Amino acid sequence: MGDARKKPNPASSSSGETLIEGRRPLRCIVKLGGAAITRKNELESINEESLGSVCAQLREAMASSSIGSASPPPRGISMDWSRRSGDRILPVSVDDFGEHSAVDFDNNFVIVHGAGSFGHFQASTSGVHKGGLHLPLVKAGFVATRISVTSLNLEIVRALAREGIPSVGMSPFACGWSTQKRNVASADAAQIIHSLSAGFVPVLHGDAVLDHLQTDVLGVYDRPPSDPNAILLREIVVDEDGSWSVLKPTLEQLKKEVEITVAAHDTTGGMETKISEAAVIARLGIDVYITKAGTEHSLIALKGQVDNDTEDWLGTVIRSSKHAPLSA
Amino acid sequence: MGDARKKPNPASSSSGETLIEGRRPLRCIVKLGGAAITRKNELESINEESLGSVCAQLREAMASSSIGSASPPPRGISMDWSRRSGDRILPVSVDDFGEHSAVDFDNNFVIVHGAGSFGHFQASTSGVHKGGLHLPLVKAGFVATRISVTSLNLEIVRALAREGIPSVGMSPFACGWSTQKRNVASADAAQIIHSLSAGFVPVLHGDAVLDHLQTDVLGVYDRPPSDPNAILLREIVVDEDGSWSVLKPTLEQLKKEVEITVAAHDTTGGMETKISEAAVIARLGIDVYITKAGTEHSLIALKGQVDNDTEDWLGTVIRSSKHAPLSA
Repeated sequence: MGDARKKPNPASSSSGETLIEGRRPLRCIVKLGGAAITRKNELESINEESLGSVCAQLREAMASSSIGSASPPPRGISMDWSRRSGDRILPVSVDDFGEHSAVDFDNNFVIVHGAGSFGHFQASTSGVHKGGLHLPLVKAGFVATRISVTSLNLEIVRALAREGIPSVGMSPFACGWSTQKRNVASADAAQIIHSLSAGFVPVLHGDAVLDHLQTDVLGVYDRPPSDPNAILLREIVVDEDGSWSVLKPTLEQLKKEVEITVAAHDTTGGMETKISEAAVIARLGIDVYITKAGTEHSLIALKGQVDNDTEDWLGTVIRSSKHAPLSA
Repeated sequence: MGDARKKPNPASSSSGETLIEGRRPLRCIVKLGGAAITRKNELESINEESLGSVCAQLREAMASSSIGSASPPPRGISMDWSRRSGDRILPVSVDDFGEHSAVDFDNNFVIVHGAGSFGHFQASTSGVHKGGLHLPLVKAGFVATRISVTSLNLEIVRALAREGIPSVGMSPFACGWSTQKRNVASADAAQIIHSLSAGFVPVLHGDAVLDHLQTDVLGVYDRPPSDPNAILLREIVVDEDGSWSVLKPTLEQLKKEVEITVAAHDTTGGMETKISEAAVIARLGIDVYITKAGTEHSLIALKGQVDNDTEDWLGTVIRSSKHAPLSA
């Protein structure tokens, strides 16, 4: 039984955590689903309300350095000093920062977001996910897709910055990532760590080529969540060789083999791909929580207060087998 | 006397050029000055007219595969399929691409742009160029500056894409660049080359921390161009050790030592820094032309038609001494 279970706050100094150059350990990698932050049925439309809740929760989680912190901290001072459409006044007062203290604000987070209604139209119109960059249409689609998803990335960085979170956008393509191979080159990870060490919150985005519209759900299910028989997977453990298995519910509870369905239209492998990607992180000893953005469940996860023994928390935890109970 | 002088078109196969993985050689690195593409006296305002001219010239240069190509090619099909403010219709027709040919379109260009009226306010307000990222104001200023310059980068990528240029934004910070050290890590250059090889035009931007408002001028001068005695430096040669000297005008013509003035307010070293940065490129055998954007001079430079023997072309050429005349 690992420390991570006894001390669910990832900011604690348990042995399973990843220390970043002697600083406070990475607290959380937050993946914001595209469906949670955009209006999926409206082209290139941000769900401002949901995004606002998410950013406020993130700020609250960053400000709560101890477990059980009750009252939410005051709103941060905006770090977005740029014009917004129709707005010609920059809402910044330098004086605000004179007394502002960064103490007890632990922003050792990495944020990754999906594309939602950004990028999808461009990718599907051009068929860019099928390859063929030598074809003019596909090449144009790649350019158009990147424009769309980087627009979204910029808006999310700005929304975070308006909450006082020192966010910096980092585009996977620009960093040389090949998400098709699902591997992160060491040079790229180094830049993320470098940003964290400098006190910033890296905000990465899903490569639209590999990202598709997803239903906004509580976590990972054993089949498409639109299926009424779908069961929420509560805990997935990852072995040292990278293979993963479902610990909760048990096979008996599921009454059958867990069946991760790859939808025919989902060229990227759907949830299996997402679990595999989460598993890469979990193998490092960093727990991955998948839950619905902007809910009590996401806030609990962000604060590191998920208790495996309660059934109240709804979501999926993906963690290394080294830190999971030996038996369930 | 080098090939580059006899065959001024950088797309020719002269020995001094950099071949990219067996493909067509890099034709041009274009630096768009911030003052040329933004309205410098209006906060975060793009000079749409100038930017449009620049993008049209770039497209024309990319389409003219042979020297002396006369009539400009038809306008490209837009690769920006995203909404613009107030615009809910995506102006794309997939059918357009069916007959579109990429033949004779040599877009082996790298584009770098300055910040102009983007980023400057945020950087100067916070004093981020003086360091001190542990201070809340400075950290906020860094975040705010990045938001501003990446907003500009996105708009320039979109303007290029609307001309049919397959542009992809690459943010130096995200790539792990440290422009304070003026060095490009090999991993980052590799990603630029990778993008070029895939047929894209990387669009990099000046780090606002190191970028200041500049006068929009014809090239590099021996002193601040606002000085009525300022003389345009026409040709600068770079030795293999990276040191550089002015070849034209000669010292006799200048009648005195060339004096590169570092303005007190310019924390980045001003023109000396810019020449040094250009020199790094020139050492690789890639000629650097500095001229005024959107003019006949920039178009001639983009087409690789600068002839050193004529005085008509106004601008500064920075090239390796290996390819420059031995005496002037």
